[in-house]
Amino acid sequence: MPRALSDRPLTRSAMPLQEQLYQRIRTAIASRQLFAGERLPAARTLASDLGVARGTVDTAYARLIGEGYLLSRGPAGTVVSPDLQAGILRSPATRGRRPTARVPQTPQEPLPFQLGLPALDAFPRALWARLTARAAKRLSGGALAYPDTAGLADLREAIATYLAVSRGVPCRAEQVIVTSSYQAGLSLIARVLLQPGDGVWFEEPGYFLARSALKAVAARLLPVPVDEQGMNVEFARTHLPPARLAVVTPAHHSAFGVALALARRQKLLAWAAETDAWIVEDDYDGEFHYVGRKLPALKSLDLADRVIYAGSFSKTLSPSLCLGYLVVPERLVEQTVETKLALTKGEAVLGQRVVADFIAEGHFGRHLKRMRGLYATRREALAIALSDTFGDRLRMTVQPGGMHLLARFADGGNDVELARRAVRHGLMPNALSSQYMERTRDYGLMLGFTNIAEEQALTKAKALANAIGF
Amino acid sequence: MPRALSDRPLTRSAMPLQEQLYQRIRTAIASRQLFAGERLPAARTLASDLGVARGTVDTAYARLIGEGYLLSRGPAGTVVSPDLQAGILRSPATRGRRPTARVPQTPQEPLPFQLGLPALDAFPRALWARLTARAAKRLSGGALAYPDTAGLADLREAIATYLAVSRGVPCRAEQVIVTSSYQAGLSLIARVLLQPGDGVWFEEPGYFLARSALKAVAARLLPVPVDEQGMNVEFARTHLPPARLAVVTPAHHSAFGVALALARRQKLLAWAAETDAWIVEDDYDGEFHYVGRKLPALKSLDLADRVIYAGSFSKTLSPSLCLGYLVVPERLVEQTVETKLALTKGEAVLGQRVVADFIAEGHFGRHLKRMRGLYATRREALAIALSDTFGDRLRMTVQPGGMHLLARFADGGNDVELARRAVRHGLMPNALSSQYMERTRDYGLMLGFTNIAEEQALTKAKALANAIGF
Repeated sequence: MPRALSDRPLTRSAMPLQEQLYQRIRTAIASRQLFAGERLPAARTLASDLGVARGTVDTAYARLIGEGYLLSRGPAGTVVSPDLQAGILRSPATRGRRPTARVPQTPQEPLPFQLGLPALDAFPRALWARLTARAAKRLSGGALAYPDTAGLADLREAIATYLAVSRGVPCRAEQVIVTSSYQAGLSLIARVLLQPGDGVWFEEPGYFLARSALKAVAARLLPVPVDEQGMNVEFARTHLPPARLAVVTPAHHSAFGVALALARRQKLLAWAAETDAWIVEDDYDGEFHYVGRKLPALKSLDLADRVIYAGSFSKTLSPSLCLGYLVVPERLVEQTVETKLALTKGEAVLGQRVVADFIAEGHFGRHLKRMRGLYATRREALAIALSDTFGDRLRMTVQPGGMHLLARFADGGNDVELARRAVRHGLMPNALSSQYMERTRDYGLMLGFTNIAEEQALTKAKALANAIGF
Repeated sequence: MPRALSDRPLTRSAMPLQEQLYQRIRTAIASRQLFAGERLPAARTLASDLGVARGTVDTAYARLIGEGYLLSRGPAGTVVSPDLQAGILRSPATRGRRPTARVPQTPQEPLPFQLGLPALDAFPRALWARLTARAAKRLSGGALAYPDTAGLADLREAIATYLAVSRGVPCRAEQVIVTSSYQAGLSLIARVLLQPGDGVWFEEPGYFLARSALKAVAARLLPVPVDEQGMNVEFARTHLPPARLAVVTPAHHSAFGVALALARRQKLLAWAAETDAWIVEDDYDGEFHYVGRKLPALKSLDLADRVIYAGSFSKTLSPSLCLGYLVVPERLVEQTVETKLALTKGEAVLGQRVVADFIAEGHFGRHLKRMRGLYATRREALAIALSDTFGDRLRMTVQPGGMHLLARFADGGNDVELARRAVRHGLMPNALSSQYMERTRDYGLMLGFTNIAEEQALTKAKALANAIGF
């Protein structure tokens, strides 16, 4: 048993025992006393060692599983999620304490198969530097004072215009609230819409960091199974407790890459209208559709005005900008801005200015078009390379859009172990099973293709085969 | 009675009646149906009109007073805080709905006497533009990916070095957590340290936006009187319920400008050590001390490691940067970073890079020195101009530091009315009485001097006299 968990007793204090244990396990993971993939002691054993009730350990484990730190492997026990090692907790501050004071730098290049990054080599660096230099020169007067909490006016205008044209989302600039990321937008709107204990439908499997934003407002996460038509709305209405909010990725599901079918979209909207519930549409990669036409956003069908649309420039431009946005119904605008003001003053003016100019001057539309072409090429190249390398030991369902491929291996039940081996070789795929909140129902490796150049595809596919021992 | 409050009944819904009323009043203020300084209906009258219990209205009013939206004037009733009109809620999104879609721009220049802004005319624009252009050109690879949630490594190093030298705060770079503002830092650390209902000692009078960050985590605010020696720690220990946290502005109190006396500092630190409580030191203007030596930060005396130091570049450089930082004790680092990750991905990389370079290349030290000189001049010029203009109708205690003057008028009991008149004339002083959470004990106008050039001081003093009818 890892000493970090049981070498000190839990204390009698204001903090409940399960909370203390929860913190202790998180700290042990963050400080690398527990490693990704490492098995935790059985709940009964740990409870006995610590002299606490079995239920205390169960509760702490369940919470950590819910937040994605741990992963239940059924009879095989509970393990530390393999993804954690791959970057989530790898903030410099959470690494081991070193006597020398320098904080380590982040890696300089994306790792092969890493998820959620746009093609960094295709970022329009020279143009961006030029627009930035121009905007910096012009900063003066009020532009140096506090920003509008809701966002720079010109950026809100630019986003509203872009969304109407490109995503079929008609909205007024006043409804656009600039945020620092999807994560920040979800945290914000969760505070506006939810009371502690409110139910939230959440895709199962689903995006694990989004869960932590919802947990932070003490929402009750209700996993809704996802099939080839996206979130199973019928199932949720029939079998789950009432919810106040549903969080969905309708364009391409965050793990499977499937689109939410039109009938499901209509059922979801009807549910929200009938029960006064809300929907957060996470349209993180809606622009990246390669076969047939791009689907318009769910928000475009939202006659009852129950959808909060969430977008971000992290996938379309660069995560380093830390800019995203919400489109909220008019009746939520005031409260959203006021809630935001209690949390933060706003986002840096210069970055907002440059993105606003980039959109207004037509660069954004051209950039997206170029990226769609590039990603289509890279996706196809990687799919072929994987197929050539693995043959029938690998099954891929290539979806018409998204930023990753999902590869299922013939004997791939232990995708966590496969991912772990890959990480040891400097690759960074994600295990599908680690995206589940409750019981894992599917296994495979999620392979980001955006940063693998066409001519590197075969090399990387072979590196993967070598790493996982095929 | 304003129609906006009672023209519709409150509804039977999941939201408690007092919550509905609270939202309705906030919306009425934000949408300008209620104006700053306007009197609200008596609680009894409104309760009767709405058909709800008197206590429902009292609760909603009390909450709004606590958050600074409303101001209790004792027997004279409850009014909308005059400061609100002066910018806090003036986000474009919260202004009245217009049929034309353009969001209005923020004002291009700071208003005379506006608080909390550095001298925007003295911002090193050309140098900043040069450093920004250089940093933008160098952005590539990993620097375009997700930022470290805890902050750019080089910025954390630079801040740690600066704090040790300039504020007497020795810390390791790992302890520095970059935030988007003091507001964001306080929101973050409040989530780490507080459970709902936990008591927080808060300066009375105090900085009202900080209260909303604490209210957002359902903290119980315990106002501690401030006198000429700063927060009255003895009073708090003797008369107030136990607290888990104290939030203080030791360098120069946010309203009075007084420094927290050494004996009080020691008592505060002893209290925290003895009761396992925490202290947030808001060192927002600690650099701006004009008479005698700068005081080292409270954190420099913190042997028991109970102080979370909060700084920001909003006052020392520009609020448009949206960058602040916390220095947290080592044992809180992990949890703070993890909590931050649930709320936001981080801050834009480019802005962090430029600030890091600005500090590391020695510009920051020189800039602060120049600003101290400039502010000393502007402060003196304004003090003389006010004295010349108002004579003995005005009483000023000029403190050795800070970014505003506090002027008490001979018949200045109604400082809210004075501030309102000034706002109508395009000036923006704040009423001291509106900084109180509970019963107002002092009246005066807070007059920011940082953006009033020496040669403009007399003109502005006369404009103020004219505006308030002296």
